[in-house]
Amino acid sequence: MATAPSVSYSMTVRLELPAGGSAVSQITTVVESAGGHVTGLDVTASGHERFRIDVTIAATSTDHASAIVARLGEIEGVTLGKVSDRTFLMHLGGKIEMSSKHPIRNRDDLSMVYTPGVARVCTQIAEHPEDARRLTIKRNSVAVVTDGSAVLGLGNIGPMAALPVMEGKAALFKRFAGIDAWPICLDTQDADAIVEIVKAIAPGFAGINLEDISAPRCFEIEARLREALDIPVFHDDQHGTAIVVLSALYNALRVVGKEIADVRVVMSGAGAAGTAILKLLLAAGVEHAVVADIHGVVHSEREDLQGVDSGSVLRWLADHTNPDGVRGTLKEAVVGADVFIGVSAPNVLDARDVAAMAEGAIVFALANPDPEVDPADARQTAAVVATGRSDFPNQINNVLVFPGVFRGLLDAQSRTVNDSMMLAAARALADVVGEDELNANYVIPSVFNEKVSGAVADAVRDAARAAQEAQSAS
Amino acid sequence: MATAPSVSYSMTVRLELPAGGSAVSQITTVVESAGGHVTGLDVTASGHERFRIDVTIAATSTDHASAIVARLGEIEGVTLGKVSDRTFLMHLGGKIEMSSKHPIRNRDDLSMVYTPGVARVCTQIAEHPEDARRLTIKRNSVAVVTDGSAVLGLGNIGPMAALPVMEGKAALFKRFAGIDAWPICLDTQDADAIVEIVKAIAPGFAGINLEDISAPRCFEIEARLREALDIPVFHDDQHGTAIVVLSALYNALRVVGKEIADVRVVMSGAGAAGTAILKLLLAAGVEHAVVADIHGVVHSEREDLQGVDSGSVLRWLADHTNPDGVRGTLKEAVVGADVFIGVSAPNVLDARDVAAMAEGAIVFALANPDPEVDPADARQTAAVVATGRSDFPNQINNVLVFPGVFRGLLDAQSRTVNDSMMLAAARALADVVGEDELNANYVIPSVFNEKVSGAVADAVRDAARAAQEAQSAS
Repeated sequence: MATAPSVSYSMTVRLELPAGGSAVSQITTVVESAGGHVTGLDVTASGHERFRIDVTIAATSTDHASAIVARLGEIEGVTLGKVSDRTFLMHLGGKIEMSSKHPIRNRDDLSMVYTPGVARVCTQIAEHPEDARRLTIKRNSVAVVTDGSAVLGLGNIGPMAALPVMEGKAALFKRFAGIDAWPICLDTQDADAIVEIVKAIAPGFAGINLEDISAPRCFEIEARLREALDIPVFHDDQHGTAIVVLSALYNALRVVGKEIADVRVVMSGAGAAGTAILKLLLAAGVEHAVVADIHGVVHSEREDLQGVDSGSVLRWLADHTNPDGVRGTLKEAVVGADVFIGVSAPNVLDARDVAAMAEGAIVFALANPDPEVDPADARQTAAVVATGRSDFPNQINNVLVFPGVFRGLLDAQSRTVNDSMMLAAARALADVVGEDELNANYVIPSVFNEKVSGAVADAVRDAARAAQEAQSAS
Repeated sequence: MATAPSVSYSMTVRLELPAGGSAVSQITTVVESAGGHVTGLDVTASGHERFRIDVTIAATSTDHASAIVARLGEIEGVTLGKVSDRTFLMHLGGKIEMSSKHPIRNRDDLSMVYTPGVARVCTQIAEHPEDARRLTIKRNSVAVVTDGSAVLGLGNIGPMAALPVMEGKAALFKRFAGIDAWPICLDTQDADAIVEIVKAIAPGFAGINLEDISAPRCFEIEARLREALDIPVFHDDQHGTAIVVLSALYNALRVVGKEIADVRVVMSGAGAAGTAILKLLLAAGVEHAVVADIHGVVHSEREDLQGVDSGSVLRWLADHTNPDGVRGTLKEAVVGADVFIGVSAPNVLDARDVAAMAEGAIVFALANPDPEVDPADARQTAAVVATGRSDFPNQINNVLVFPGVFRGLLDAQSRTVNDSMMLAAARALADVVGEDELNANYVIPSVFNEKVSGAVADAVRDAARAAQEAQSAS
């Protein structure tokens, strides 16, 4: 499957050229013929004889970008200068910062922001702890916590190498929901230690976003923290993905005219995201779900499940899915299925497998960057296709939900996050796509759709308040 | 000792008054006669009959402010409206926030700040960990860590009530040194747990500022963290205070024309700050130091020191101070002393004690808000007097050093902070006061002196680099 050139592999190269002649006109041709795009062309110095141009190109990979630059150097009369990588330039010195909300210009300002004035605010909170949400950053702060064990598709690269992702996440929290998030990258991968640390740092935050922590530790860590803390704990890789998938499924089912309780859903992948998606689908009313992992369809009589700890995820899946007793391989299970959801590995299905699905098939192939089935192949017979990629329609992207979910939780001062809030988020996101906008290539809105974050936030806030009222009434 | 009205006890009260008559002219008189100051007077609505004024007053305490407001309500024809507290208003919603350095306007921005572009930056750091300081916020980030056990003079008020102080500290880090600090308020006061937690969160930071952690745990926590971490760990309550005190002492000695090796120094207080001050004074060349605590002068034969653990602070003090074998009470020890430094409790000395000191006595009475001796009384005979208060000359204020110290450490990418760097900071701060500016009422510059932070940062950076070179040469 070809990948389109992207600014995430974007270089700016400085060229010196003869002022006359055809060198300039060759630049775009050379880049395009090498499979790249010219996205910027700035003359930075000019003279009678020669001039200097900064050419920005988008490529499909770092190697591709280097190859294109080499080709530019072969143009007659061109001298290659400094090559800069736009993505790296953007990360120099980090992508976020701390800002003070008030200027500190003089002694008066200082005596209110800091001592002695601050002492009265401290005393107020010591006597009325609930005022911490009124008088401190706790009200609007989220810790983005990782141990660096499962970062993007890169695996266990450790806490420091995970920091650029956590900074990006913090930047997105602010951009899409006005939330102040700060990265906490932990130099331990011990579940007990992580639980103790997150419990200890919780007083300064109103929510915990767990990020890129590998399964199965992520399940235990999240469950124990939810039990221990009075602020919501949300593992975005699990629940963020689950909410967007359910949302897309709601709309895809509208497109094909099927009901959620009737469809047969086959999932590939029983990791963190897969398990969370499945649980949310069941909560949303899916009645016929089958999960397959690398050993085939999960069922309670499968050999490798005998004697497995009843607390294990596979055991849970065996007990809660596959009511119809499906056996065999993934490829066998998808025959006649209405919905395929992949959160596993590239190319586990092909066009014939998708063709064997039921009429009006829905295919969400979310492995990144290479999906479970080529979306172009799937689209030949499936009615709706979604991927995790930005260069195809219907991108399943967590950025659609985590900012709004936390905004709603923070606004409700929620102490928890539960299925009812996540279901509300999924429904709200689906409803951002109006009846007149809905079609097979638009089951999920763009992350830059201005309505998304607010709609998700409102729905989550209302669900959180309803949960609070239900609890105080009971 | 009278306290002056301060904006840190400042209220804004809304008054409704008759448009005619003398009510308006009475406002200032009433406030001043009650001992307050009018710092603002804004007409917010006006009509033919009545009008509305927001009056901002500075008082000496919350009770005083309330009393003044009550007096305003007694003016003929005045109706009292809403009373707002300026300090509390400034703290609403917290004093700091997280900001993104780059706008995220479109898909291209998103693909560089976050996935997929960020993956290449992560890979770069995984392969070259030293690049974390180039490509992430680590380069400029400091964690402000507290357990809320010794907050200002308020004592053990816990982590959440400590948050306003930590936010203020973070704001000062930015204001005076451009540093991105984030508060980490820990819900544990167990030294082992704190050490493990701070070790674990260290990857995302280039320095740790410990804050308001009570003695003796602060000694152990700092020592263990310095041993374990490859970033500098600095307990500001100890070392920040010590650096400013030494700096003020350097200049006070210039005023009285004495040498540091010759003077007899008597300290009151053997807590966190006292111990750190003493150690830095010894490193700076003080040869005759005596420490007194609540039981009198510390010496190795004192009864309560027999059988005390050799690792204890008191034991250390007994072994490293008092070479002349002074015995008895604090009051006895200060007779004939050149320098008194108090970091203990209010009013442990009086004017007669100061009068009994040597000619050209230097008195630093730092207990807050009420010093060890009334500075006005001390000034009758002492040559130089300093306090921790902002309403007397020569304020010993940590804000003078912690921003610059960390700026220097971060700029040098220092892995440690040691005596040579702290001595350099003290000397640089002292030297900000020029020979032509120096006098008994100006041994220490203002925190708003623009030269302070840069001078301290440069000195610390150079000392840190020198230490790095010495180490790599050895």
